[in-house]
Amino acid sequence: HPVERRAISQRQLDFERARPRWLREMLAEATGVFFYVFPGIASIASFTLAAGNPETAPLTPVFGSLFQIGLAFAIGISFAIIVCAPTSGGHFNPAVTICLAVWQGFPWKKVPYFIFSQIFGSFMAGMMLMGMYHEQLSEFAARTTAAGEGTVFNGGPASVLVSFPNANQTNLGYLVLIEFFVCSFIIMVIWACIDPANPFVSPAQAPYTIGLVYATMVWGFADITISTNMARDLGCRLVAAIFYGREAFTYHNYSWIAILINIPASLFGVTYYELVMRDSLQKIGKGR
Amino acid sequence: HPVERRAISQRQLDFERARPRWLREMLAEATGVFFYVFPGIASIASFTLAAGNPETAPLTPVFGSLFQIGLAFAIGISFAIIVCAPTSGGHFNPAVTICLAVWQGFPWKKVPYFIFSQIFGSFMAGMMLMGMYHEQLSEFAARTTAAGEGTVFNGGPASVLVSFPNANQTNLGYLVLIEFFVCSFIIMVIWACIDPANPFVSPAQAPYTIGLVYATMVWGFADITISTNMARDLGCRLVAAIFYGREAFTYHNYSWIAILINIPASLFGVTYYELVMRDSLQKIGKGR
Amino acid sequence: HPVERRAISQRQLDFERARPRWLREMLAEATGVFFYVFPGIASIASFTLAAGNPETAPLTPVFGSLFQIGLAFAIGISFAIIVCAPTSGGHFNPAVTICLAVWQGFPWKKVPYFIFSQIFGSFMAGMMLMGMYHEQLSEFAARTTAAGEGTVFNGGPASVLVSFPNANQTNLGYLVLIEFFVCSFIIMVIWACIDPANPFVSPAQAPYTIGLVYATMVWGFADITISTNMARDLGCRLVAAIFYGREAFTYHNYSWIAILINIPASLFGVTYYELVMRDSLQKIGKGR
Amino acid sequence: HPVERRAISQRQLDFERARPRWLREMLAEATGVFFYVFPGIASIASFTLAAGNPETAPLTPVFGSLFQIGLAFAIGISFAIIVCAPTSGGHFNPAVTICLAVWQGFPWKKVPYFIFSQIFGSFMAGMMLMGMYHEQLSEFAARTTAAGEGTVFNGGPASVLVSFPNANQTNLGYLVLIEFFVCSFIIMVIWACIDPANPFVSPAQAPYTIGLVYATMVWGFADITISTNMARDLGCRLVAAIFYGREAFTYHNYSWIAILINIPASLFGVTYYELVMRDSLQKIGKGR
Repeated sequence: HPVERRAISQRQLDFERARPRWLREMLAEATGVFFYVFPGIASIASFTLAAGNPETAPLTPVFGSLFQIGLAFAIGISFAIIVCAPTSGGHFNPAVTICLAVWQGFPWKKVPYFIFSQIFGSFMAGMMLMGMYHEQLSEFAARTTAAGEGTVFNGGPASVLVSFPNANQTNLGYLVLIEFFVCSFIIMVIWACIDPANPFVSPAQAPYTIGLVYATMVWGFADITISTNMARDLGCRLVAAIFYGREAFTYHNYSWIAILINIPASLFGVTYYELVMRDSLQKIGKGR
Repeated sequence: HPVERRAISQRQLDFERARPRWLREMLAEATGVFFYVFPGIASIASFTLAAGNPETAPLTPVFGSLFQIGLAFAIGISFAIIVCAPTSGGHFNPAVTICLAVWQGFPWKKVPYFIFSQIFGSFMAGMMLMGMYHEQLSEFAARTTAAGEGTVFNGGPASVLVSFPNANQTNLGYLVLIEFFVCSFIIMVIWACIDPANPFVSPAQAPYTIGLVYATMVWGFADITISTNMARDLGCRLVAAIFYGREAFTYHNYSWIAILINIPASLFGVTYYELVMRDSLQKIGKGR
Repeated sequence: HPVERRAISQRQLDFERARPRWLREMLAEATGVFFYVFPGIASIASFTLAAGNPETAPLTPVFGSLFQIGLAFAIGISFAIIVCAPTSGGHFNPAVTICLAVWQGFPWKKVPYFIFSQIFGSFMAGMMLMGMYHEQLSEFAARTTAAGEGTVFNGGPASVLVSFPNANQTNLGYLVLIEFFVCSFIIMVIWACIDPANPFVSPAQAPYTIGLVYATMVWGFADITISTNMARDLGCRLVAAIFYGREAFTYHNYSWIAILINIPASLFGVTYYELVMRDSLQKIGKGR
Repeated sequence: HPVERRAISQRQLDFERARPRWLREMLAEATGVFFYVFPGIASIASFTLAAGNPETAPLTPVFGSLFQIGLAFAIGISFAIIVCAPTSGGHFNPAVTICLAVWQGFPWKKVPYFIFSQIFGSFMAGMMLMGMYHEQLSEFAARTTAAGEGTVFNGGPASVLVSFPNANQTNLGYLVLIEFFVCSFIIMVIWACIDPANPFVSPAQAPYTIGLVYATMVWGFADITISTNMARDLGCRLVAAIFYGREAFTYHNYSWIAILINIPASLFGVTYYELVMRDSLQKIGKGR
């Protein structure tokens, strides 16, 4: 390991053992989601504020892009796994928690605690960002409101926190379709990364590979509105509702798609992987 | 491995053994090509729609670029290998299948099944993308058609699915030359990655290295038209023909270059590697 | 290892043993900070000069962006760790040195030597850059001075070396808030990477993961002014003061935030990690 | 290893043994330099042609940028190491060959053969690119010539192949200074990557780390003219001279800096590493 460590005192071990496991797991899930959401929405803020200001708009690519936003989420997910997965297993997504419960024996009674923690982590990331960008977002909201656009629309202040459909995306069917297949795609890559029989992923590589699948989906579909994670969406949407009103949930009747579709989509993707790809004996056969 | 796993039941092992191997291999090849093509053409869609709309054109770099498209294909290829290579070996390219048959003893009778599956995976990725981007691409096609440009040209709706030469690229000789050496370059890096004597590639690194060789070729040559993979091209070109007509195959008499040149080019690259670089004893000598 | 090595002579071993350890450690810390700061500020120079020149301004994204600057620092940090950490342990940040002293038994008497070396490395990187970009920065300073803007402001010549708040960022409270949570975020990822119980980071991956946490913070918060490292800031701010006057320290009363806030912020982040995440027995439990 | 391999026939082993070692080493060095230079100059071509055409100039970032060019060279270098280093050791740079001869016992009599091969590989990459981009570069050269700018200047057709100083960079002293410290920086990272005592670089990581040091230098200093490698420069400069005349060597009296400065600079960087960082016993001490 990169760093040698001093001897561990008995006092420290006693303290470590005294911490309740459920609390540590919940804190780890919340912290992990925070680590994943925070860099992502910060990049969206840098991008949205540049694009929304006539002075800086021509140089928007300098401040952000779908490419940068996708990678910021991707790397944030890697950080979440690296920092928190050793403690909680590293779900960070209610759909992952549910799929693990359905297919891999993760205890159902832990599911609500995990999901609550994940949403809480996202909520904290949204609140923190609103604090750090308070001056800039207030000024931006004043400008869009003065222009009669309000604050809740794609490209507006609320869209720093969560996705909203474009003004012309009024057919919810397509939004469901997009969300469904994007989430199925993501979960299949995750499932391959946590398949112990897979020779192409090392523990040190898994965090980045899982992160990058989110990045590619942002690059390819963020222009037509995706959400990908119930906890990331619901936590930040609550923050958006606090700051910009109920429209964060009611705009275009979209929010239920962002919050819920990823669950059935993930179950679909996992089922495909389990039926077609899973090969438990591969591990045994190779003696690994 | 990153994740511990519950015990595997006899019932699951029975189910896994009952699946026909050929079906799983075909599904894995199709799924892999889907995983590789889908993020790539999604990034092209995001880019092409931004560039093709006068309102968003000045901010095109925010929605995509050759850089992002190249990386989306690259990471998609990594996903294909990570998710599907443990099942089928991970060809995802008829030229790779043929080269493995010629040089590494891959059974010839499997070749047509693999190639069919690869084309089918690309076809499904194209169809899926057309569904998810249906609203936006229909509107775009209406606009280019109204402008008298049709839909089949570089930068037009059909070019989201497959490459077309620029309007001034009428000399097919140069298009053959470009395609040939780009594909030779790609296969040599792939061949080095699957050479068991190579100490510079670990199983966990191979997917990304193979992906990145496609990325660099997109960055360097996509502006003057490359295709690189028969399955990726033919599958999506069929989709383009369904939606935008036979011109997808007849435009500039180009499509045969996109579909076929990669095969002899790959054989050329592999032959060079086998004759000059291959060193079977290196493995034995180092006791690996 | 990638490269075989010739036999080592006794004479070489004697020389190596004769070098004073403290000098090598100080040189390694200074060199490491140089390696981290130099590529970063060079990218800022390329970007700032393009943006500050009316002729090249429209093509600024071609010369640089927050994205590129963040990655240049990130990769520079990786180089610092790879080249110098085997000699000195690889702190490169006074806050890391202090946190290691507080939580991991790093000897307090070494702390001032390490911090001095780190500041010296940053100072050398700043001086070197001023030499290499002398022609271009002189011309730029002449232009901004002639325009009555002076040289010390965000986007001006001095901002190549260190960060300055935007003209409208007059509330120091927000600048403290931003700096504090950015630095807490960074140190928690670093602390996870140097936790020997962490299965998701290999020695070869740690340099890049640590680098990338700086990158994501640059992407998300550099538009509203961050600094992140006392040594990187103070060393280069001294260079800025030499070339552009005392205003480098006095502008907007900001510099103390850039120089000092990272210390308590890092202690906060480390304390959270130690109390919640640290699990010393995990290592023992898995027999690693 | 990622791929299982069929049994190796005696006939193949006989063939492999019959190949002369010196020829394979020379071909590997030439091929490696080709692999490194080809993607890099292709990205420069895509970028330069977009920037040089008034129609596409506003969308230049879509076709290329210093960021993309730097990464194209970086990944090309990784490919060179992965494909060819197992055969020749992977120098790809006369300065590396000379430093290995001076400090690590690489046989001096091989030095001229290696350097010749390296220059030849770069020459072939340049020729190949001129063939593949012939139509586009001819048209571009006709346009710049018609505009009275000639073809040899930074941003012109010849600058696709090799670097030229900006029109206002007439002080050769600064060009020497820039080249010298950029090359010293690069070699120190390379030297750390090939130090067997270094725990932070694995064989699979070394190719990318070595590549990325070139990338960061391109990002930070390509705007003020760097070259970094005698073979890459001289091979392509010969191609530039063939197509665009002797001015490729005489423009601003610059070419000797591009060709020669990297040698003493690399010796300087290696000497610093050997005297300060090298710790031969670290390997032994850790029992690795």
